[in-house]
Amino acid sequence: MALLNTDHSGLSRRPGARVAADRATQDSLRKHNLAVVFTTIMAADPSALLSRADLAERTGLTKGTVSALVQQLIGLALVAEGPPEQPRGVGRPAIPLAPAGRTAVGLGLEVNVDYSGFRAIDLTGAIVAEQVERENFRGSDPEAVLGRLFRQARACAAALEAEGMRIVGTGLALPGLADHPQGPLRLAPNLGWSETDIRSIAEKAATAREPGLPAPTQTKTAALVAYLTVDNEANFAARAELLCRGAGRPASFIYLSGAVGVGAALVIGGQVFSGGHGWAGEIGHTIVDPAGPRCACGARGCLEQYAGTRAIVRAAGLPADSGIDSLLDRLDRPAGDDGPCQAALTTAARALGIALASAVNLVDIPETVVGGDLMPLTKRLAPGILAELRERVVAARWIGHDLVVRPAKSGRYAAMTGAAWHALSRVIADPASLLSAPAA
Amino acid sequence: MALLNTDHSGLSRRPGARVAADRATQDSLRKHNLAVVFTTIMAADPSALLSRADLAERTGLTKGTVSALVQQLIGLALVAEGPPEQPRGVGRPAIPLAPAGRTAVGLGLEVNVDYSGFRAIDLTGAIVAEQVERENFRGSDPEAVLGRLFRQARACAAALEAEGMRIVGTGLALPGLADHPQGPLRLAPNLGWSETDIRSIAEKAATAREPGLPAPTQTKTAALVAYLTVDNEANFAARAELLCRGAGRPASFIYLSGAVGVGAALVIGGQVFSGGHGWAGEIGHTIVDPAGPRCACGARGCLEQYAGTRAIVRAAGLPADSGIDSLLDRLDRPAGDDGPCQAALTTAARALGIALASAVNLVDIPETVVGGDLMPLTKRLAPGILAELRERVVAARWIGHDLVVRPAKSGRYAAMTGAAWHALSRVIADPASLLSAPAA
Repeated sequence: MALLNTDHSGLSRRPGARVAADRATQDSLRKHNLAVVFTTIMAADPSALLSRADLAERTGLTKGTVSALVQQLIGLALVAEGPPEQPRGVGRPAIPLAPAGRTAVGLGLEVNVDYSGFRAIDLTGAIVAEQVERENFRGSDPEAVLGRLFRQARACAAALEAEGMRIVGTGLALPGLADHPQGPLRLAPNLGWSETDIRSIAEKAATAREPGLPAPTQTKTAALVAYLTVDNEANFAARAELLCRGAGRPASFIYLSGAVGVGAALVIGGQVFSGGHGWAGEIGHTIVDPAGPRCACGARGCLEQYAGTRAIVRAAGLPADSGIDSLLDRLDRPAGDDGPCQAALTTAARALGIALASAVNLVDIPETVVGGDLMPLTKRLAPGILAELRERVVAARWIGHDLVVRPAKSGRYAAMTGAAWHALSRVIADPASLLSAPAA
Repeated sequence: MALLNTDHSGLSRRPGARVAADRATQDSLRKHNLAVVFTTIMAADPSALLSRADLAERTGLTKGTVSALVQQLIGLALVAEGPPEQPRGVGRPAIPLAPAGRTAVGLGLEVNVDYSGFRAIDLTGAIVAEQVERENFRGSDPEAVLGRLFRQARACAAALEAEGMRIVGTGLALPGLADHPQGPLRLAPNLGWSETDIRSIAEKAATAREPGLPAPTQTKTAALVAYLTVDNEANFAARAELLCRGAGRPASFIYLSGAVGVGAALVIGGQVFSGGHGWAGEIGHTIVDPAGPRCACGARGCLEQYAGTRAIVRAAGLPADSGIDSLLDRLDRPAGDDGPCQAALTTAARALGIALASAVNLVDIPETVVGGDLMPLTKRLAPGILAELRERVVAARWIGHDLVVRPAKSGRYAAMTGAAWHALSRVIADPASLLSAPAA
């Protein structure tokens, strides 16, 4: 009975709640302890895996309890044993425990303005399947685009299940405002989508009979729809960025997700802060110039009219639909005809600096991480951004060394990674939930 | 032993921490339980005070333990017994327990651009002493101004102690960036102060021999300096606003503190969010127009150049030093010569709307509370602010009913109230800390 009553949070307690042990059944205790052991294994540094004895020491559980729980996690295919290590003292060799690869899998889906696709990730963080299509989805039909994506995801799920993997959940990243956790999508200005019933589209795609696909079973439907989470792409991408940073001091940064729109996620002490409705981070609509050009959101002079990829490419005199790659190509050429490109980047950097200065003044988070399509431009944008920050952030003189602008480590399609990991995190927090679902 | 192991937080536990009970001594358990009982008494609705039996039920402690702890709190003069109530069933009449008035007192000090002063508040929230002087402190000498204020506070402390009260701590509110918790003050642009060593000024004032004051004793020095917290005035004022709202669903709002500068505090779920360095909320330096007038911070086009009281008064064609009261007087006059005042308010409202729209887009907190010198203007400013919010907040269509602008309930000098309450909150969280300090 000890563990349920033990404070694992490090947080101070508040009065008024009832004694938890009164309600605790043996069953919920076992579930809780299973989660404690699994999250401890997942949180371990891959270069210093934990043995059963290490787990007993870290969790305060007895060695016998830990052994039984580890056996259960191995039975659920969530944990794998590594080769035994030489014992440090006398006694049997310690067996290192690691997250199991290619067993439980999270699916991360994304539709953005010029691509859509998905990524499947296992508990080790490895990508076990991926499919991305580049296409212009501005003004597209959400039912057609999402229906196709969910059917592709279902085909992928079937293929992975045939290889013995199990889809434990799905995350869908969209460039807009979605109700948490399953929609509807309220608005994605740059897609031209609004009031889109994600869940019913997903259900239809998951249960329709498809040529070339096995008949839908309850298992696959459950994974694709019942455990579906819809969120803003910047929020998911920021989670992927946190994953890349690994353990250590909880990070705080503003994650900028650059595409046709400019999204952001506020990461505070290792957590994504998403606000009252889950809609925080809309930095793309910070007003850079109240008399500026009209934005897709209806207002004037929003940041993304200066620093969105389409705005940059247009300002550089390149075809508006050609995407940021055309700009990168031009910048890489040895010839000296990149004047308009440089000017477009100067304008974008200044606008980013103005918007970020207001954000840093407001939330006191001095680090900016540049992700998405703007990531390859970070080095070129950073000096202009920093110049504005140093002029406009009130505390610049004291936090000058913290005012940094760095490229995201999470790479392209980070939102897919974050969405897939979010799906896995449900199982990491409650591995016992897999006991009730039939195995794949 | 039960209580320390009981989860009072309602928060989920994280693995990895050691079993708390291992370290818990009888002493720390008693301290913890004393705090649990006291915070429960303090959190009760004044119209529904708790008896010892109610406390036992809410905290999960035995009636015997509760009685002993309540006796200790009464002995510390933190809790008082009310008149016995008729019993609901059989048994003895229940004795309601309430925070004790005029015993433990927190001191809240403030220097702002055109006033300075302090407020002493007891555990019932009553103001037991107050002193405010209106004066222009722009470009003043921090050592002279703060030294005088701390000496006044010391005289007040001596007077209150002579009446049997006990100063348990001090909060100092300043319109700028201060290191937490005791300074130095880094920058207060509108005072023209920077790098000011608050603690040494406070120590000097608290220990100097003063004509007409009793010789400084260790008690008074400890209360005024050892338990001194320096913070931004908007953060303290937002705490006062939270107090006025009382219990219930934890509130989230942007508290605007209008003076010569425009400060803000982000209140998220009943807590003031103060950022990595404690410097969040500098909304006054949100860029309204990048080519606008030069600000005291060095940048251009900051919000406070349009919506600070000095800017409004100047735009209204009134003497810049005359303060917001001159504008209020002019608006109250029946004659129709208030055109320039109306125009100044239109400009201020638009600037506030632009800055708040960027803030709401970023942090998804749709409620704005207008405090400080701008509070009496809320009704006149709100329509213009809301028009900008409705145009510029991306989620406006869905959170329209949440987009509200209301006057602060905490009244004038709210930062002093918040600072005094902050000083009291240390004792509320740890009443046993008074056991080691000699009684006044």
